[in-house]
Amino acid sequence: MTILVLNGPNLNLLGQRQPEIYGHDTLADVEALCLRTGRDLGIDVRCEQSNHEGQLVDWIQQARGNTQGIVLNAGAYTHTSIAILDALNAFEGRVIELHISNVHRREAFRHHSYLSARADGVIAGFGTHGYALSLRHMAHLLAG
Amino acid sequence: MTILVLNGPNLNLLGQRQPEIYGHDTLADVEALCLRTGRDLGIDVRCEQSNHEGQLVDWIQQARGNTQGIVLNAGAYTHTSIAILDALNAFEGRVIELHISNVHRREAFRHHSYLSARADGVIAGFGTHGYALSLRHMAHLLAG
Amino acid sequence: MTILVLNGPNLNLLGQRQPEIYGHDTLADVEALCLRTGRDLGIDVRCEQSNHEGQLVDWIQQARGNTQGIVLNAGAYTHTSIAILDALNAFEGRVIELHISNVHRREAFRHHSYLSARADGVIAGFGTHGYALSLRHMAHLLAG
Amino acid sequence: MTILVLNGPNLNLLGQRQPEIYGHDTLADVEALCLRTGRDLGIDVRCEQSNHEGQLVDWIQQARGNTQGIVLNAGAYTHTSIAILDALNAFEGRVIELHISNVHRREAFRHHSYLSARADGVIAGFGTHGYALSLRHMAHLLAG
Amino acid sequence: MTILVLNGPNLNLLGQRQPEIYGHDTLADVEALCLRTGRDLGIDVRCEQSNHEGQLVDWIQQARGNTQGIVLNAGAYTHTSIAILDALNAFEGRVIELHISNVHRREAFRHHSYLSARADGVIAGFGTHGYALSLRHMAHLLAG
Amino acid sequence: MTILVLNGPNLNLLGQRQPEIYGHDTLADVEALCLRTGRDLGIDVRCEQSNHEGQLVDWIQQARGNTQGIVLNAGAYTHTSIAILDALNAFEGRVIELHISNVHRREAFRHHSYLSARADGVIAGFGTHGYALSLRHMAHLLAG
Amino acid sequence: MTILVLNGPNLNLLGQRQPEIYGHDTLADVEALCLRTGRDLGIDVRCEQSNHEGQLVDWIQQARGNTQGIVLNAGAYTHTSIAILDALNAFEGRVIELHISNVHRREAFRHHSYLSARADGVIAGFGTHGYALSLRHMAHLLAG
Amino acid sequence: MTILVLNGPNLNLLGQRQPEIYGHDTLADVEALCLRTGRDLGIDVRCEQSNHEGQLVDWIQQARGNTQGIVLNAGAYTHTSIAILDALNAFEGRVIELHISNVHRREAFRHHSYLSARADGVIAGFGTHGYALSLRHMAHLLAG
Amino acid sequence: MTILVLNGPNLNLLGQRQPEIYGHDTLADVEALCLRTGRDLGIDVRCEQSNHEGQLVDWIQQARGNTQGIVLNAGAYTHTSIAILDALNAFEGRVIELHISNVHRREAFRHHSYLSARADGVIAGFGTHGYALSLRHMAHLLAG
Amino acid sequence: MTILVLNGPNLNLLGQRQPEIYGHDTLADVEALCLRTGRDLGIDVRCEQSNHEGQLVDWIQQARGNTQGIVLNAGAYTHTSIAILDALNAFEGRVIELHISNVHRREAFRHHSYLSARADGVIAGFGTHGYALSLRHMAHLLAG
Amino acid sequence: MTILVLNGPNLNLLGQRQPEIYGHDTLADVEALCLRTGRDLGIDVRCEQSNHEGQLVDWIQQARGNTQGIVLNAGAYTHTSIAILDALNAFEGRVIELHISNVHRREAFRHHSYLSARADGVIAGFGTHGYALSLRHMAHLLAG
Amino acid sequence: MTILVLNGPNLNLLGQRQPEIYGHDTLADVEALCLRTGRDLGIDVRCEQSNHEGQLVDWIQQARGNTQGIVLNAGAYTHTSIAILDALNAFEGRVIELHISNVHRREAFRHHSYLSARADGVIAGFGTHGYALSLRHMAHLLAG
Repeated sequence: MTILVLNGPNLNLLGQRQPEIYGHDTLADVEALCLRTGRDLGIDVRCEQSNHEGQLVDWIQQARGNTQGIVLNAGAYTHTSIAILDALNAFEGRVIELHISNVHRREAFRHHSYLSARADGVIAGFGTHGYALSLRHMAHLLAG
Repeated sequence: MTILVLNGPNLNLLGQRQPEIYGHDTLADVEALCLRTGRDLGIDVRCEQSNHEGQLVDWIQQARGNTQGIVLNAGAYTHTSIAILDALNAFEGRVIELHISNVHRREAFRHHSYLSARADGVIAGFGTHGYALSLRHMAHLLAG
Repeated sequence: MTILVLNGPNLNLLGQRQPEIYGHDTLADVEALCLRTGRDLGIDVRCEQSNHEGQLVDWIQQARGNTQGIVLNAGAYTHTSIAILDALNAFEGRVIELHISNVHRREAFRHHSYLSARADGVIAGFGTHGYALSLRHMAHLLAG
Repeated sequence: MTILVLNGPNLNLLGQRQPEIYGHDTLADVEALCLRTGRDLGIDVRCEQSNHEGQLVDWIQQARGNTQGIVLNAGAYTHTSIAILDALNAFEGRVIELHISNVHRREAFRHHSYLSARADGVIAGFGTHGYALSLRHMAHLLAG
Repeated sequence: MTILVLNGPNLNLLGQRQPEIYGHDTLADVEALCLRTGRDLGIDVRCEQSNHEGQLVDWIQQARGNTQGIVLNAGAYTHTSIAILDALNAFEGRVIELHISNVHRREAFRHHSYLSARADGVIAGFGTHGYALSLRHMAHLLAG
Repeated sequence: MTILVLNGPNLNLLGQRQPEIYGHDTLADVEALCLRTGRDLGIDVRCEQSNHEGQLVDWIQQARGNTQGIVLNAGAYTHTSIAILDALNAFEGRVIELHISNVHRREAFRHHSYLSARADGVIAGFGTHGYALSLRHMAHLLAG
Repeated sequence: MTILVLNGPNLNLLGQRQPEIYGHDTLADVEALCLRTGRDLGIDVRCEQSNHEGQLVDWIQQARGNTQGIVLNAGAYTHTSIAILDALNAFEGRVIELHISNVHRREAFRHHSYLSARADGVIAGFGTHGYALSLRHMAHLLAG
Repeated sequence: MTILVLNGPNLNLLGQRQPEIYGHDTLADVEALCLRTGRDLGIDVRCEQSNHEGQLVDWIQQARGNTQGIVLNAGAYTHTSIAILDALNAFEGRVIELHISNVHRREAFRHHSYLSARADGVIAGFGTHGYALSLRHMAHLLAG
Repeated sequence: MTILVLNGPNLNLLGQRQPEIYGHDTLADVEALCLRTGRDLGIDVRCEQSNHEGQLVDWIQQARGNTQGIVLNAGAYTHTSIAILDALNAFEGRVIELHISNVHRREAFRHHSYLSARADGVIAGFGTHGYALSLRHMAHLLAG
Repeated sequence: MTILVLNGPNLNLLGQRQPEIYGHDTLADVEALCLRTGRDLGIDVRCEQSNHEGQLVDWIQQARGNTQGIVLNAGAYTHTSIAILDALNAFEGRVIELHISNVHRREAFRHHSYLSARADGVIAGFGTHGYALSLRHMAHLLAG
Repeated sequence: MTILVLNGPNLNLLGQRQPEIYGHDTLADVEALCLRTGRDLGIDVRCEQSNHEGQLVDWIQQARGNTQGIVLNAGAYTHTSIAILDALNAFEGRVIELHISNVHRREAFRHHSYLSARADGVIAGFGTHGYALSLRHMAHLLAG
Repeated sequence: MTILVLNGPNLNLLGQRQPEIYGHDTLADVEALCLRTGRDLGIDVRCEQSNHEGQLVDWIQQARGNTQGIVLNAGAYTHTSIAILDALNAFEGRVIELHISNVHRREAFRHHSYLSARADGVIAGFGTHGYALSLRHMAHLLAG
């Protein structure tokens, strides 16, 4: 069982920008947490990050047929990218949409997500702990 | 450490109505899951359910000073109750807003939540498993 | 065959408030008319009224499994209650939404009904005679 | 006492198009039902149908002075015709707006009616039985 | 020099419906006034009225090449007919849009006119006297 | 002369929640102020508070016929309750809508009041002193 | 009989600015036309122009009691001034709202007029000839 | 195999009005092109045009059962007619919605089509050549 | 302690225009009431009125440094003037926004106030008595 | 004569994702069809596909000066990319906007296209056959 | 070469109000900066300030024919004055719209400017330095 | 001191596309101007351009810690990219948003900028001269 953890634009700056919103963990910390959680749960976790919308589309397409679930923090593209939605629509596995901060407490343009229409679940405001919980839920679902 | 798990209108019918949306677990199943998870995590869990908005407000008020967090599935009142928001605003602890289904895939009027402006975290579409994950996050936060 | 006739907030004042809108019949008159019409049609009619949204939700829930139809005049909650909609969604029988006055000739906020999305039929502006016609239609449907 | 039953565009196809929405009765069935109901109630019923907005306006105008009520199913023109509203405004008798299906459960553009602002009553979703109930209400009103 | 005075739906009821809005002059009075004013100004006036949108389109098309101006009171079609706008767009002469009442003091849906985008001038609320003033302005324009 | 001072949801927490918005006076302080002011003005003051919308509707209904005015701080229900508006519409006396804070400086959803359409006067942002001024105005009006 | 012809901001530049919209007549030409038309009709015409909203309010107030009608071209204030609307509401005589150009063919913000809600008639797009027609209508009305 | 080519209001003026938008071909040219293309493709083509909405509804209804496809340029009624949409909904064959000009480059009210919700395909801005391509596509589909 | 009572456009007509809305007291009556109330409370009251937005801005600016509070009835400018809001933003004292009528029961454009965002309190619908209550509140605040 | 056929995000999955919407042809099939059609029409066809918005912009820029037309299926970027619109604005040749499915029957956010404002023609819902028809139209236009 | 630097309402308080937004320079400082910059650039600079909309209109009108450009900080009137826009439309020279603060980071009603539709350039958030840069640009343009 | 001048999509075509909007200077001209201005001001200027949103994000991220300011002309991404906004939010230096044309005089979708919420200043419609002024302002700010 393989899960793709996909992080979008500016998440490579995690821990360095606006820590009052995103906390102090870096992207490396998050990816280490995901790998560690994966090992605990007996699932294979792969992590990618890009600032390029097209790259995220490419990776989601490549996950077709060899990945059972995607944990996706699409960052700003959550609110603007129909291309990512369409790629997810072509993906046959489970999708969890994740936001580190509670986007509903921020600017109005962060309240709408194109991706929620496809996601199986949405989790926001759980900090980096949300990645671990999402992987745990993936294991739960795919075991179920 | 005490956590209040609060369920709103029509959640007493869980497992009986629209199982294609809400699944087959009953409210009793959910409450048993919460108590069991609480025991595992070493936290005291209390469960309440009501169809009455005013009753939910009363319970949130009564949680002030003796409860460290609320996991709240306010059901339909999520979308219509400012009174519950105001009660939460008066509560000093952590708040997780929970929906069993992914409300963003349903009618447009279920996309807006008055409560998200106060919640620390929001989780939707994780089924009844979301209750266990929320309690786990409460433990994580309060331990943190 | 049992039909529940459910009246919402302020309908206990029928005949006493704004008779130019609601006419001169009292709630007692309406309930007597319903019982009489039920007897004529050979159906068992039960009548309830409450100013409390949660109470209306409770009664609709209790009608599950023992009632074939609900004639519902939800009054002001027509326009604000998703909780009642959800309760109706969990009810397996027929639902007729009734308004004594023609709500479309009144304030704009009375033009939208959350309940119409679930109702089988909607009748407005037929005065208290609408209750008799609705029961007659219930008999017609359930006989059909 | 004379009542005009007026059917608008595409209602001549009743029973032939989209029976899952409109049922299996034909326009001839509906008109026969109206005449039969009229005879039972002792009122003179006249039936007309047209696909032309202007023709409907003409008939409503001609009903002035010799007709006590109009039962109007304006079909699609319900949502687009101010000309029919104006003709009704010039008619001195009772007006019932009728829809066979519950228009509120269909596309959003069917939720608004220009005619409701003039109608004395509105009935939707009662199938072709709604015609009989409307005539019965006309008799009730004009007798009252 | 020929001017077409074109009246739309329900204007054949002028003087008979809602005199508090439209006054007591009949359509015959208005047409006599137009002919008389035309004679005084030395212009040939032709008057038509129809309740049918398509008929109004036909007449505007027929005015091409033989008529220098149209005084158009399109009644309710003012607010709903793009077909009449398109016919006017194909007409090479002057167009005055006329309303007997001040439409801006009435329902909101009467505040928007599809035709104003093509009209050279708009006059509203001058009662039936507006027809005489409009013809006078046509004479003024075409003389200019 | 009797005046009902009615406080809605969460006002029982006055002085305990968000004092930077609502100040430090408790509900008991406010009710004492109202009784004292009533005595000074020679009017009989009765005070009630509830978190339940239906209870507020009940109390307003019970004030019919025995109370000359209502000073109503409906809290969150100001913005969501048409049921309370309808109850006020059935009340024959004077109504003053009161808010302790200036609701217009807070979230946008607090800017609209369903109740203002019925209130004789509206006062906001005068702190708890607004209760005394409202009673004083009631005395002024009823004396006038 | 006295009529006030009131011109608002930038109309002192008439004939000098944007002649493709406003034509070549100057304000002096317009005022001369008004005086001449007044003499022909036997009515006393007074003309004023200001760029100051408050000045226009002052003049409308001063017309109370000594003027039977106002022909008002409020220019840009048409679209932004409630103060002028309120002054007109306090004026007991007839009011004609005039625009030289057809404002409905220009920017969207020129399509709404605060003043139309009070005006007896509105005339737009008749060029400076509209002033003469408006005075003629005033004479017609006041004679009527 | 029979295809109906249906043209709506003002298309009888094709080639005569606004050639910068619609080009220089007349309706006769278009109908000749359609017949010629039909002969080439071995399909029976029938052409109709009307300025009357009701007539277009009539023709679409009459096409039921004897026509495999409709190429419909509904002109202005595209944007205003739900009656035509309903007639198309009752038609069992293929429907292509055609516009000679690219309606999306024109006024905003031409951007919405009621008919697109039913059309199988939409083609705009291909000039009169679009008719030939649409027939070609009909042949392709019906052959497929 | 000095308080400025500032009245905006058309309030010089108080008692003369629309007494069913504004009552029968004149501006002179109101100013006398304010002076008298000031004397009773031991505060120095200064009264000004203007129809000119710029004049109101000037006076508010001049109140800086020598006035502790402003009771402002900005009339129509309440709904249109950001300039007055900015002047108030530069004023360091207390501000009460006052309306004689309950603006929320009148036209929709009177429901929004630019000034409420700066006002400490808002009072509407208390008639001219509101001026006395506002001064009393100023005394209460400044004493507090 | 050279035509560029440009396909945007996720069109590389054609035939593999959602065949009920997009059919069973693959991108290779479509490109083969385009090349074959080009050969038949005597035009040079070049095909490109990318998931990257910037890459599509680059290719459109490179088409300047050496390509007479672009057939563009921008996929999801149709609805979100002003950058592609701007690149098209800098392209001097013909542009046809193509969608395989009828986007107007899908989610509301697919109804708006930034590109239509620049396209000469738009074709939607013709399946992959639309590519052949578009090339045929390009040949027709460029021959014309 | 003459440039008019025009400042609108409340800019006479510059340096005294809200320095966190507007900085510490006074209007006198700004005008001295403008005169000094003008001397450096060899252009004649004239400065005016008023709180009165009509006065600003007057000055813009007077600049016609003797001034080559206007640097306009219209303050609050930026967002509410069509009269100033119309005056600018009658001015034949260059216009730069200036805001000291970045209005786009402030309240939503400050995001729209009526004047931008006429301005040649807009500069916001450059503090008082923006005046010097604007004059420099005027010199650049007029030299160009 | 280092300043990054960043140009977005299609700005590599400067001088070649739509010169009536963007002028005749090429990107090379602009970059030469920036370098020359930088030398004059004693600041180090670096220039980049890309059509790829992700590339712009990358460059902004790389500017953290080694660049004191960014002059950003994000072209079309101004209106659609939250990802660029987030990258700017993570940048600790000064940001000037620049547009060569006055975007407020163009299509409505160019009136909104996601970036203005972060920019210190915004300059539009100053042509390529705006780059020089922006650098001059950077020098002024950083010197200040």
